[in-house]
Amino acid sequence: MDCATLSREIYQEICAFPILDPHSHINPHSPASKSLDDILGYHYYTELAFSAGMKKTFLTPEADPRERVREIIRYMSQFDNTAQYSWFLEIAREFLGFEGNKILPEHANWLWDTAEKKMAAKDWERQVLNKSRLERIFLTNDFDDPLTGWDTSFYVPCLRTDELVFHFGANQVRPRLENVSGINPGSAKELDQSLNNLFQHFVSRGCRACAISLPPDFHPEKISDDELDRVFRAGDFQSPTWKQGVFWKLAECCAAFQLPFDLMIGVNRKVFQNGVFQGQDLFDQRTSLIQYAGLFNAFPTVPFCISVLTSNQNQELASYSWIFPNVITSGHWWYSNIPAYIEQDARARLQAVPKTKQIGYYSDMYKLEFGLPKFNMYRKILAGILARDFVQPGALKLEEALNLARLVLRGNSERIFKIPATGN
Amino acid sequence: MDCATLSREIYQEICAFPILDPHSHINPHSPASKSLDDILGYHYYTELAFSAGMKKTFLTPEADPRERVREIIRYMSQFDNTAQYSWFLEIAREFLGFEGNKILPEHANWLWDTAEKKMAAKDWERQVLNKSRLERIFLTNDFDDPLTGWDTSFYVPCLRTDELVFHFGANQVRPRLENVSGINPGSAKELDQSLNNLFQHFVSRGCRACAISLPPDFHPEKISDDELDRVFRAGDFQSPTWKQGVFWKLAECCAAFQLPFDLMIGVNRKVFQNGVFQGQDLFDQRTSLIQYAGLFNAFPTVPFCISVLTSNQNQELASYSWIFPNVITSGHWWYSNIPAYIEQDARARLQAVPKTKQIGYYSDMYKLEFGLPKFNMYRKILAGILARDFVQPGALKLEEALNLARLVLRGNSERIFKIPATGN
Amino acid sequence: MDCATLSREIYQEICAFPILDPHSHINPHSPASKSLDDILGYHYYTELAFSAGMKKTFLTPEADPRERVREIIRYMSQFDNTAQYSWFLEIAREFLGFEGNKILPEHANWLWDTAEKKMAAKDWERQVLNKSRLERIFLTNDFDDPLTGWDTSFYVPCLRTDELVFHFGANQVRPRLENVSGINPGSAKELDQSLNNLFQHFVSRGCRACAISLPPDFHPEKISDDELDRVFRAGDFQSPTWKQGVFWKLAECCAAFQLPFDLMIGVNRKVFQNGVFQGQDLFDQRTSLIQYAGLFNAFPTVPFCISVLTSNQNQELASYSWIFPNVITSGHWWYSNIPAYIEQDARARLQAVPKTKQIGYYSDMYKLEFGLPKFNMYRKILAGILARDFVQPGALKLEEALNLARLVLRGNSERIFKIPATGN
Repeated sequence: MDCATLSREIYQEICAFPILDPHSHINPHSPASKSLDDILGYHYYTELAFSAGMKKTFLTPEADPRERVREIIRYMSQFDNTAQYSWFLEIAREFLGFEGNKILPEHANWLWDTAEKKMAAKDWERQVLNKSRLERIFLTNDFDDPLTGWDTSFYVPCLRTDELVFHFGANQVRPRLENVSGINPGSAKELDQSLNNLFQHFVSRGCRACAISLPPDFHPEKISDDELDRVFRAGDFQSPTWKQGVFWKLAECCAAFQLPFDLMIGVNRKVFQNGVFQGQDLFDQRTSLIQYAGLFNAFPTVPFCISVLTSNQNQELASYSWIFPNVITSGHWWYSNIPAYIEQDARARLQAVPKTKQIGYYSDMYKLEFGLPKFNMYRKILAGILARDFVQPGALKLEEALNLARLVLRGNSERIFKIPATGN
Repeated sequence: MDCATLSREIYQEICAFPILDPHSHINPHSPASKSLDDILGYHYYTELAFSAGMKKTFLTPEADPRERVREIIRYMSQFDNTAQYSWFLEIAREFLGFEGNKILPEHANWLWDTAEKKMAAKDWERQVLNKSRLERIFLTNDFDDPLTGWDTSFYVPCLRTDELVFHFGANQVRPRLENVSGINPGSAKELDQSLNNLFQHFVSRGCRACAISLPPDFHPEKISDDELDRVFRAGDFQSPTWKQGVFWKLAECCAAFQLPFDLMIGVNRKVFQNGVFQGQDLFDQRTSLIQYAGLFNAFPTVPFCISVLTSNQNQELASYSWIFPNVITSGHWWYSNIPAYIEQDARARLQAVPKTKQIGYYSDMYKLEFGLPKFNMYRKILAGILARDFVQPGALKLEEALNLARLVLRGNSERIFKIPATGN
Repeated sequence: MDCATLSREIYQEICAFPILDPHSHINPHSPASKSLDDILGYHYYTELAFSAGMKKTFLTPEADPRERVREIIRYMSQFDNTAQYSWFLEIAREFLGFEGNKILPEHANWLWDTAEKKMAAKDWERQVLNKSRLERIFLTNDFDDPLTGWDTSFYVPCLRTDELVFHFGANQVRPRLENVSGINPGSAKELDQSLNNLFQHFVSRGCRACAISLPPDFHPEKISDDELDRVFRAGDFQSPTWKQGVFWKLAECCAAFQLPFDLMIGVNRKVFQNGVFQGQDLFDQRTSLIQYAGLFNAFPTVPFCISVLTSNQNQELASYSWIFPNVITSGHWWYSNIPAYIEQDARARLQAVPKTKQIGYYSDMYKLEFGLPKFNMYRKILAGILARDFVQPGALKLEEALNLARLVLRGNSERIFKIPATGN
């Protein structure tokens, strides 16, 4: 069988696996889109349209959502070459019944109206889940999320800790922390108690991971309680000392509560000050996992599921995961979630890292409709690698390649996050 | 149609587009070669021959040009694996009628004599332009170029500003600036006037861009006029303050005169002190576009056409261009102008950046004969990507793929540099 | 001929070339394995098994080697996707007569017993050499190796200098240096004499290169004898001054003794403190060859054979070698010795660097059995590049491609290390 045919066959097969999505930003109270505005309001579209010249006025809360969508679709003709566009085309075809091969301005009305109708269905969420074979989806919950009102075995809670580390002095973080943990910490000791209560709250409601995104220059280090006490007294929660100190305590909690820690490494926030909502963050390629060596050494029992923002850093990730038992490669994040980079990065991981230590992909999505096209993009690339690098040269039989795919697509997540296997 | 056939068909089609070359070092008073020495004197050949062991004595002004060419051809057998060699082979075949598949020392005489004869033709420049379908070529003019004596709508002026920023105290820059602008600035205010006059001079003669090459550690920042006045008083034109200050003022002029600013980022000059002419510069991969975030934020109306020297930095370029409306990806520069890197870098851009924000390629050539082989190298790779990533998987029809190619090959340059479209 | 067929044909042909291995860690007194423990004790297996969850107790000297091997094979099912695993499978098939396509726990006994039997043969070393067509192998000798007791024209001595630079104050380095050179240096001048004697010793016994591995932040610089004298008086052999000073003197000796200097750039030692033996080292991608510019400029007659640890740095290596006559690209080292990275890196070198300045590959092996599978991995990739980039597009005829392969596989090593050609 030639490589292209083989790749297509593998793709078909692995598309039949139900999806376990180990990282998303789904709101469990409103997981599916209610209109095309929910789809095209995703920052991947607003930022590309803005980058291509669209005016920001269309993005204000006062703007008519239908006009906004029309305008974004109008600008789409300037970025219909992108992977991001291809996700939308696939959503239109798979979920809205669009039959064309290209989204044009003249389709805006039809798409809007069709979305209105379809998404109004009571069971729209269920339709999307079924069609996508989405079986389990991890969330990214604010630290003060009450975690009630939904099935937490399906929409799995995950404790997001960015605010505690980077904005402790702002956003009402301290009263909110008191609210959820019963303690407004004023010392290192009280911080321990407060975080302990917080983790207790999350774990008792089915939380399966702690998560944080980190700037390129972040360098974890243990800070003594004395030093942290000084930070509390000075109220200097923007200091590196605070950030390092509370981050280290979060890792201690992960160890104590046996939670994996998702580290998403490399993002600089608000680089483009006039950018659209969620379209302001970029990065500095000059970062290294050597900054995390102390952390990986100090917490051998904590699985660190690492996402890196740049493909440059993928060789470090593959190498650190090849050496450190507690370093897991995780997904293809944001600016690296582009076929050219996924292909290189996934290939290197599959050739160098134990197969049991690789979480192949997550959607990072805000709305359910994106799960299918994003996972399909990854599955197509994975199928190509399995065909070319493994089955074609005789290293794996087809069935073995499918098993390898199943492992990186879901088996490893089940084991690492202690999800009961479903037999799929 | 299989991918290879499809790729060849796309290649044939896009080779028929006339070339708009948005960056070269052509001397408009002597654009075509006058002998084989002009061809093989290109630093790509002298440096490779020298790197392979050739003695530098052949490169002195006193050396016999015919001997020099013979010696470089003799050393060519040590670098006939390179992309650079393949350009020369294509020049020999296309422009000199060489019929072999390999340049050998025994061809040196024939090549020299044939070049002598052919290049002596009065219409040699026209012959080269026609055969290459070169339709418009951007120059890189010294800041004190009078810009007279040629058709500036064909050989389009571009203001090169390296000397003003990096060598203000040397090379007679100040008297030359006075000569062209009427002012020898001694203060920030006078610098404003001088630069204003300079830009006026260039724009009035059809200049379409300002350009500069920058070292890896350059970090643009606005400098106050008071600080610049101090620099003038101290005469400290090698200080970072001067370089940052005058660079920022150039960006202000670009904004005022609505000129795109070509930034060629990442070159360290004179790394190899004993290297041949123009073969001494290398780089430090540790650089980031984050250094330019302040600039991109401050000048939203200036299109920054960015070339990066390393393929490592391409993901930053693609990502910054995906987010910042005023960041344009531009060409494949110097050490990244090698098929292995062009392929990866072009693929990532085509998958992630709005298609209207990509200047696909420029020749960077000193002599016209290089336009054809360099553009052909790029066009072959572009055709391969379009075939494999777009047409084969059904994302684009052939005609649409050709339109995408036309856009990155010339349409975007026409729009960004405000060149009247020619209907080609 | 289609590309895959062509690639296979080239592979077959170049596998017939005898192997000149320009860098290994072979112990010439015990070059071949004596048991399966010698094979699977290689850090590539112990570290992957440990990374996949194996307990370290199996790796202690007290552990039963047969149990250790069984346990590593048991964990192999978790890394049978890796390139490292594929080397072992090839060893089992080629040298032990294993006929399966997958190593499973149930094969452990058979593999152990077969290895015991086969490796007990008096001529096992010869069998492995013949089957592998290994014709000449470079060693990496401690500086105080007496270099006696073996055929140094087959197992070629190479002076490893890591200890002199990085551990001068430890490991009994000073008495050992006195022992081999006749001088325990207490000043810069005595250091000159001592190193001179040391090089004399090595060169007189057929040494063909000096070698060292260097951390990412190492920055060679000439240190004055006065400063070195101060270091001797202070005994501060961990200072950068010492490391820079003695390194520079080693380069001076290379110049004086006309020895190439193998620089293996980029490794951080003991990053994973609890890692297995030789499985603790990682890296920081943020390093640059610009750090070596001064060195390359200062020693134009010394061939520097450069290995870089990361694929990121390969573009620097290719570019520096394209420009500096004395910079040679050398092999695919450690974390970059993975097909995904070899392919990119080798392709870029073949397209940009004179073919006479490329040492294609070395095994880095500790036991002879690894030469064949490692060289085969490289040869497969090289064949693919030659087929796709050179022969298919008509740039080289098959015979010429084989000549190019012969050059990077052995011809360049013969010339650079002054090995008498054997006519193979």
